[in-house]
Amino acid sequence: MTVRAAVAGASGYAGGELLRLLLAHPEVEIGALTGNSNAGQRLGALQPHLLPLADRILQETTADVLAGHDVVFLALPHGQSAAVAEQLGPDVLIIDMGADFRLKDAGDWETFYGSPHAGTWPYGLPELPGARAALEGSKRVAVPGCYPTAVSLALFPAYAAGLAEPEAVIVAASGTSGAGKAPKPHLLGSEVMGSMSPYGVGGGHRHTPEVIQNLSAAAGERVRVSFTPTLAPMPRGILATCSASAKPGVTAESVRAAYEKAFADEPFVHLLPEGQWPATASVYGSNAVQVQVAYDAAANRIIAISAIDNLTKGTAGGAVQSMNIALGLDETTGLTTIGVAP
Amino acid sequence: MTVRAAVAGASGYAGGELLRLLLAHPEVEIGALTGNSNAGQRLGALQPHLLPLADRILQETTADVLAGHDVVFLALPHGQSAAVAEQLGPDVLIIDMGADFRLKDAGDWETFYGSPHAGTWPYGLPELPGARAALEGSKRVAVPGCYPTAVSLALFPAYAAGLAEPEAVIVAASGTSGAGKAPKPHLLGSEVMGSMSPYGVGGGHRHTPEVIQNLSAAAGERVRVSFTPTLAPMPRGILATCSASAKPGVTAESVRAAYEKAFADEPFVHLLPEGQWPATASVYGSNAVQVQVAYDAAANRIIAISAIDNLTKGTAGGAVQSMNIALGLDETTGLTTIGVAP
Amino acid sequence: MTVRAAVAGASGYAGGELLRLLLAHPEVEIGALTGNSNAGQRLGALQPHLLPLADRILQETTADVLAGHDVVFLALPHGQSAAVAEQLGPDVLIIDMGADFRLKDAGDWETFYGSPHAGTWPYGLPELPGARAALEGSKRVAVPGCYPTAVSLALFPAYAAGLAEPEAVIVAASGTSGAGKAPKPHLLGSEVMGSMSPYGVGGGHRHTPEVIQNLSAAAGERVRVSFTPTLAPMPRGILATCSASAKPGVTAESVRAAYEKAFADEPFVHLLPEGQWPATASVYGSNAVQVQVAYDAAANRIIAISAIDNLTKGTAGGAVQSMNIALGLDETTGLTTIGVAP
Amino acid sequence: MTVRAAVAGASGYAGGELLRLLLAHPEVEIGALTGNSNAGQRLGALQPHLLPLADRILQETTADVLAGHDVVFLALPHGQSAAVAEQLGPDVLIIDMGADFRLKDAGDWETFYGSPHAGTWPYGLPELPGARAALEGSKRVAVPGCYPTAVSLALFPAYAAGLAEPEAVIVAASGTSGAGKAPKPHLLGSEVMGSMSPYGVGGGHRHTPEVIQNLSAAAGERVRVSFTPTLAPMPRGILATCSASAKPGVTAESVRAAYEKAFADEPFVHLLPEGQWPATASVYGSNAVQVQVAYDAAANRIIAISAIDNLTKGTAGGAVQSMNIALGLDETTGLTTIGVAP
Repeated sequence: MTVRAAVAGASGYAGGELLRLLLAHPEVEIGALTGNSNAGQRLGALQPHLLPLADRILQETTADVLAGHDVVFLALPHGQSAAVAEQLGPDVLIIDMGADFRLKDAGDWETFYGSPHAGTWPYGLPELPGARAALEGSKRVAVPGCYPTAVSLALFPAYAAGLAEPEAVIVAASGTSGAGKAPKPHLLGSEVMGSMSPYGVGGGHRHTPEVIQNLSAAAGERVRVSFTPTLAPMPRGILATCSASAKPGVTAESVRAAYEKAFADEPFVHLLPEGQWPATASVYGSNAVQVQVAYDAAANRIIAISAIDNLTKGTAGGAVQSMNIALGLDETTGLTTIGVAP
Repeated sequence: MTVRAAVAGASGYAGGELLRLLLAHPEVEIGALTGNSNAGQRLGALQPHLLPLADRILQETTADVLAGHDVVFLALPHGQSAAVAEQLGPDVLIIDMGADFRLKDAGDWETFYGSPHAGTWPYGLPELPGARAALEGSKRVAVPGCYPTAVSLALFPAYAAGLAEPEAVIVAASGTSGAGKAPKPHLLGSEVMGSMSPYGVGGGHRHTPEVIQNLSAAAGERVRVSFTPTLAPMPRGILATCSASAKPGVTAESVRAAYEKAFADEPFVHLLPEGQWPATASVYGSNAVQVQVAYDAAANRIIAISAIDNLTKGTAGGAVQSMNIALGLDETTGLTTIGVAP
Repeated sequence: MTVRAAVAGASGYAGGELLRLLLAHPEVEIGALTGNSNAGQRLGALQPHLLPLADRILQETTADVLAGHDVVFLALPHGQSAAVAEQLGPDVLIIDMGADFRLKDAGDWETFYGSPHAGTWPYGLPELPGARAALEGSKRVAVPGCYPTAVSLALFPAYAAGLAEPEAVIVAASGTSGAGKAPKPHLLGSEVMGSMSPYGVGGGHRHTPEVIQNLSAAAGERVRVSFTPTLAPMPRGILATCSASAKPGVTAESVRAAYEKAFADEPFVHLLPEGQWPATASVYGSNAVQVQVAYDAAANRIIAISAIDNLTKGTAGGAVQSMNIALGLDETTGLTTIGVAP
Repeated sequence: MTVRAAVAGASGYAGGELLRLLLAHPEVEIGALTGNSNAGQRLGALQPHLLPLADRILQETTADVLAGHDVVFLALPHGQSAAVAEQLGPDVLIIDMGADFRLKDAGDWETFYGSPHAGTWPYGLPELPGARAALEGSKRVAVPGCYPTAVSLALFPAYAAGLAEPEAVIVAASGTSGAGKAPKPHLLGSEVMGSMSPYGVGGGHRHTPEVIQNLSAAAGERVRVSFTPTLAPMPRGILATCSASAKPGVTAESVRAAYEKAFADEPFVHLLPEGQWPATASVYGSNAVQVQVAYDAAANRIIAISAIDNLTKGTAGGAVQSMNIALGLDETTGLTTIGVAP
């Protein structure tokens, strides 16, 4: 099979990472590349690490340019995907790396994004219960947010196994690429090197309702979530430190068993041996998820920690994984569990 | 007043930071400097940033060498301070930057440190209720751990004001200097740059009982604490993200009022204006603590976040602050609230 | 003496560093603070590390605002200083941290800056032969560029002692704060962390003629200079690796002797003991310069390497040092040779 | 073809990077993995980024263990390769990632390494004139040092084309992984983050004679080289800033033409478009070399700058590239020119 893929938003970090992965995908041929503010420029000037595409010229993001491909990846600011998808029609596989179609609850969408809800597409986190089946053969995929990917994979087994009370506290550290390529003063290297800082504290981050949606689905009841994202002095990676009160009778063994079962057949999620903890460096550039879990009896909490690469499994790798499933390819095609370290 | 100070353990990070501060202290004259494995070496080879002391030679850590000073700072591995203190006698001000005299509960000490409990000295975190009075005129000071400094200052006002339930979840990110100068593979620059990773997960970190001690004292009841430390790719700084369930009736206003009251007269703790969040870069090299707090109504949790420099306020600056109080000097002498940024 | 100082351009990195130093200067009272695009904002929002000035409000940069001070520091884009200086009149000490008055040769200025030459002021690098005398009592100071500071101090002794041929090759690595606070894509943390890259290669960097001016003055003949700046993944610091062909008869001993002599009485330049090499971390936040020199007999080159903090000795510390001299204060007042490390 | 490969020294950085590449190589099956001090340990504990090999156990480095493979890679301390190679016999392809067989001149070897010279093997930098032919079908390969790879590729075209005088000045910045995984105080994250520092200044670095050997071969005359390596605060990457005096008549055009000709058919060396400069981030994890060159007429020097990943093209990627040639595979098999950025 040769799949012809277009990428809308090829000049940003999500688009660049996607192209890095697609270049290594044996079934994909890279078609049109678009980027509105950078249309007309050589990709080599914008993504100098993608040498094989250095002489490609970015085009405008229009339906005409994106038409005629088997797959169209959208890495656009939120609010723009619905119109593009409608113009491309129902037969093109559209994989939205933005937020537009992630949330099921229109009210949540409007509260956190301040615009009308565009709808809900199959959710591209195949490891969640039921998610893989919904992606098979689908022509639409909503790629999860980077934080929800890390957090949901860390905590859903505890909820799915009925081990955790419906309240979770999450503190996640992200590399700066998660904040995108648009230059802002607080994202300057001078500001971020040597500094840790929180943002969106108190439930304001837009990924909060997405995390609640995923955990609540696993729990079968509404989970209250305290989510604090922090910016870490590294380009890539998310370390999500998550915990939840344990239900009565929980033991270290029952927690471990639940996680072993949840990830037994997952090609990308690696439950570490006991005593070893995740590190974002270990999944740098890889689609792997490292997870570890502990039960703190004194605090009566289950602590689950995951490490992902926010751009790979957290964005573009998750998109490719979902594309593989949607197209009936082997889920791991073109993806790796090997990190670039040290 | 001229205070003659000796430093035992001058070759490590805590000792180096202490010397940096003492060099700028108008009332202190730096006396003997010791460091067992490095005795006989020039300080300039070990602490090349301390140019005024470059030609000083490190001596062995013995009571003879440390005798004859007004103040002796101990930056020694735990378990060694009691013997030194006994030899120096009751009239010398001894400030222990190690853990030996921090905990009140001998059982906690033995559980976490695996050795007999040496005792309890006045606790060098003057901002805690009652702590300042205990330090005044004292000849013994136990300098708090770096994490307990950051965490206790973030959360004690909520407990002291009766706003929080007795369970706290804490995730703290520390710069690598907190792990010391002894070379270990996981602390190599190649390993830590670009990486976030947790350690001591599930309640095993030695600072856990110290945090519990402080928060429980403020709450007037035993507080259950889930504490997860993480290693961040930066040399200095702690960002402590702390939260606790809110008691019934808590509002954003009552939380803010409690924090404003707690820190109103504190020279080093700066409650940031609403909407601004702490960053470790802002307190780099300074004794300041930046604190911010929010009430997340949806999660019903109080979120309090603090940023400190782990070596300054978290270790050596806290030591100097306590020395000032113990000696009757102005508490801020020789200390700054100005960070080195960017 | 109390000196009342105004700072034009207080929101940028140079201005922020200057304020950090002035806050610690015992003879200075900080007056007006200006910053055009940020006028009206709290300084605490822009320079969160300067807690004592957090509630100060930035004003517009006008002569009216800057009038009535003993010293006015200008941290403005090049081309603006002359007009401000003229309005303030000849009796105010004006210290220009920009480039406008550094170069003696109008042709060099016009070639590299593309605008008419404003003139030449006494050059604020007191360690250069004759420079200190020109600063004493002066009402005008041109603060050197950061690279010329590091490079000139590394190489002038070799030229002043007649040991080096008139050709120098310089490769300097700078922290990102040298590029300023205006957000540009290539200065994002995501771009600079983990990356070294050159810029202004081939003689195009504006500091090139300033370096040539200083080295040629020391040599008494025109020195050809190959200067390559590189951007390093750190917020602060310059490491300048400089070399020049040795004249016949040069030995390791004659080189060392020349450097010892040049810096024997300098309070801020520290010639390291043989075998120890400069590191930018050692001068972090300090006004010190670490210098080391070697003679490579096989290559017949003198290698001189310096480390400075680009914001301190390379900009704001150099400015305060020159202010002290101009005002007749002790040259070291308010400045330190102690770095913040690790 | 399936090639069975053993790796001696699998626990270090060179060995880990080699395994990362071999895992992606379609013709290689990974056989024995050895590591003396770590023999008996799971690879997952030592190289947590290599998930597919996590359960492999390291063996002792003995000829028995290494026998029976088609290719044996040696990542051993210098001085050990000759004995291993002799025991394995002449029919096994041995690729030495250490220094033992790089130098032709026994005197240079003895001067810089202080031990008897083991001999000289075909040199694994195929881009050098004549090197590719010597590797074809060879059973022995000496992989170049990381600095000599970066420097030789930057400068040899100027020498091969007769454009440069026989004196070169090189300043190279390396990521910390180049210093290996053995824990030493100056390599701690606390020490290297935020710091640039030189080492081996004045011609003392062991890569100096190797650089001279390569450049002199290209020039047809002995080239004098001043080489200064510096340690940069990043885990990977080398930026080599190289220059040489231009011969009479050299122009920007003749320089550019020489470089275009030298790299026209090279799959891994990418001469950047004029105006764009190399960055180590762009070749992170890739086997690509980014090169740019300029002629500085005022200084009369040719400036050539290259960026490589020290672990990939500078060590393990170079080893795989040479293996491919030696085995008659396509030279690019299993290697990429795509970096992991940002």
